[in-house]
Amino acid sequence: MENFVYQNRTKVIFGEKKYLEIIHYLNQNKINKILIIYGKNAIKKIGLYDEITNLFSENSIEFYELSGVQSNPILSKVHEGIELVKKNNVELILAIGGGSVIDTAKAVSIGALYDGDVWDFYERKEEINSKLPLYVILTLSATGSEVNGRSVITNTEKKLKWSVRSEILYPEISFIDPSLQYEVTGNQLIDSACDIISHVLEFYFDNTQNSLLMDEISEGIIRTVMISTEKLLENSKDYNYRSQFSWAASLALNEMLNCGKNGGDWSSHKIEHALSAYNDISHGKGLAIILPAWMKYVYKFNSQKFQRFAEKIFGITEKDELKSSLIGIQELQNWFKKIGQTIYLNEIEIKEEELKTIAKIAEKQLPYGNIKKLNFFDIIEILKLAYKN
Amino acid sequence: MENFVYQNRTKVIFGEKKYLEIIHYLNQNKINKILIIYGKNAIKKIGLYDEITNLFSENSIEFYELSGVQSNPILSKVHEGIELVKKNNVELILAIGGGSVIDTAKAVSIGALYDGDVWDFYERKEEINSKLPLYVILTLSATGSEVNGRSVITNTEKKLKWSVRSEILYPEISFIDPSLQYEVTGNQLIDSACDIISHVLEFYFDNTQNSLLMDEISEGIIRTVMISTEKLLENSKDYNYRSQFSWAASLALNEMLNCGKNGGDWSSHKIEHALSAYNDISHGKGLAIILPAWMKYVYKFNSQKFQRFAEKIFGITEKDELKSSLIGIQELQNWFKKIGQTIYLNEIEIKEEELKTIAKIAEKQLPYGNIKKLNFFDIIEILKLAYKN
Repeated sequence: MENFVYQNRTKVIFGEKKYLEIIHYLNQNKINKILIIYGKNAIKKIGLYDEITNLFSENSIEFYELSGVQSNPILSKVHEGIELVKKNNVELILAIGGGSVIDTAKAVSIGALYDGDVWDFYERKEEINSKLPLYVILTLSATGSEVNGRSVITNTEKKLKWSVRSEILYPEISFIDPSLQYEVTGNQLIDSACDIISHVLEFYFDNTQNSLLMDEISEGIIRTVMISTEKLLENSKDYNYRSQFSWAASLALNEMLNCGKNGGDWSSHKIEHALSAYNDISHGKGLAIILPAWMKYVYKFNSQKFQRFAEKIFGITEKDELKSSLIGIQELQNWFKKIGQTIYLNEIEIKEEELKTIAKIAEKQLPYGNIKKLNFFDIIEILKLAYKN
Repeated sequence: MENFVYQNRTKVIFGEKKYLEIIHYLNQNKINKILIIYGKNAIKKIGLYDEITNLFSENSIEFYELSGVQSNPILSKVHEGIELVKKNNVELILAIGGGSVIDTAKAVSIGALYDGDVWDFYERKEEINSKLPLYVILTLSATGSEVNGRSVITNTEKKLKWSVRSEILYPEISFIDPSLQYEVTGNQLIDSACDIISHVLEFYFDNTQNSLLMDEISEGIIRTVMISTEKLLENSKDYNYRSQFSWAASLALNEMLNCGKNGGDWSSHKIEHALSAYNDISHGKGLAIILPAWMKYVYKFNSQKFQRFAEKIFGITEKDELKSSLIGIQELQNWFKKIGQTIYLNEIEIKEEELKTIAKIAEKQLPYGNIKKLNFFDIIEILKLAYKN
């Protein structure tokens, strides 16, 4: 097992309507002025916006708003938020939404206390030392951003989707009410499921051998997500499976799965970030396309682990390591397809001649790759595997 | 899934010799005066005592010592520690040891800031509001006390072994170096394994049905502990399996397994506390005796879960819920026996006529029991099942 340091400061408050307790925590910390960050209309449609803003009005909490955060959240929106905070002396950021909103809120929370351009943190020019306090009301379980110190932002001018990670970035409190996600159905649900499973697998498939406990927990999370997704596709308002799905998403990326590993292999994510910076497809869909292609490209470098995956997730008993590895990868793709996911680049509007352009964007974040260190040509090959039908 | 609040503030620093970084953290927090709490000679034998105290001397850290903490740690030792702290204006408690030492250190850390008798907290007469900072260097993985807010102390005068639990009691930092446990072999290792498995199962077997994710993770932890224990009984210095074992012990009782559950059952623990307060056998041995007896007494009230246990841990495919439940319990007992554990009360020096006395001690902490709420007569029946060979 590799050495590690693990601490997760976020307080998770889980359950129906538990977010109403936010007033208690704001009062306790003497917070009177907050910036609410959210997406488009989803939180208005489910009545959450009115409920929360009325609550604040009744309790004399002054609030400002930054709305319109899109998936693959962008830097210019972050700048807008920072300006609002600075102009109004906001004391706390409240993200109401999923990963994009939370990642934006994290960027705002560090940018608000920094004189330069917040993008400096993403370019590693500057180290994160402080942030405004950050609370979250989660409305989409997928990225785990509610319980970790990561933020991914797209710089549209530069066509770059880059990430930061810091102990400082953990939200102080995250309210998770699974019933807020009853309207998360269809593609949004499917994409989320693929996102979560990818997160787990990016930790799971690395070059460490001695990771029995983390393997066991990872497999348990994946099986839970698969079962819950199928149940939710049948009945999106099943509170139990919503809960299992939500909490699995959080545990998938609360950094626990990295304990004793060496950081996982996030190649699929890096390549997907290039793909979605270029094409603006959803992160989950991008991952469902890139992850199996990457797996097919690297499985030979740790086939023992790929065989274990095939056995523990899909019950494959094939003795030959390489064969069972490939069957396992195929089964994963079959499952993505079964739940209605896109699994090849041909199915979205990408032409074969564009692969090189995407690879060039992905190349900018090199070096990466842990099972196999990738170069430009590897990325091209992976994209070809993602293209081929 | 039940509502929950989860936050674990403890920073875990895991790896060989990582505890040497303690100086960095003491300096960072401007701590100059500490109380070291430890057990008997174990930390001297492995050279850890000299290494740490030399390190403190070299770095001008003033330290006091409370040694001789025994398993089933006692209140009078806690009082001694509190006196040392108050007399010398100690700023931080450092526990070097396993659960007993850490639990003692926790008690000292709260008692040091309280004017009355620290036992008041254990009797629920007083609420825990503050403690001195607490660091841990773990030398025995079993109770999970290094990553939670629980403390169990025995009041020898009153023959009571009672526990407290509070968010305040989480250690600030726990250093886990699995190689410090190379000398933990034989009974000590076996008892620890039984302790860990019991912790997991006390959460696992409760009256909640909707706990898929926690069930998966619990089962993964149990399988890891079983495999690691067998490997360590063959080679106690296998760093990988020491690590798996250590980290599994921490995750078993860092409160994560309670997320979405309703607190677990813990009847076995309560009865065992009575047993070990009466007889001073090790907690792990006591649990290996009481837990299966309790399981045999209550399985009918949640046989679906007991069947799942039999299947996921021992591969039992018996379709009949009651039958498979009983086979699973028997298999657990067989495994305890296989690793060399005591499994019946007859094997220790307890006579049948003493069962009533033990039950009377266990009765003092009633009400408990979640699958089945227990009364005095239930406790007697469980003890009889633990007695019968």
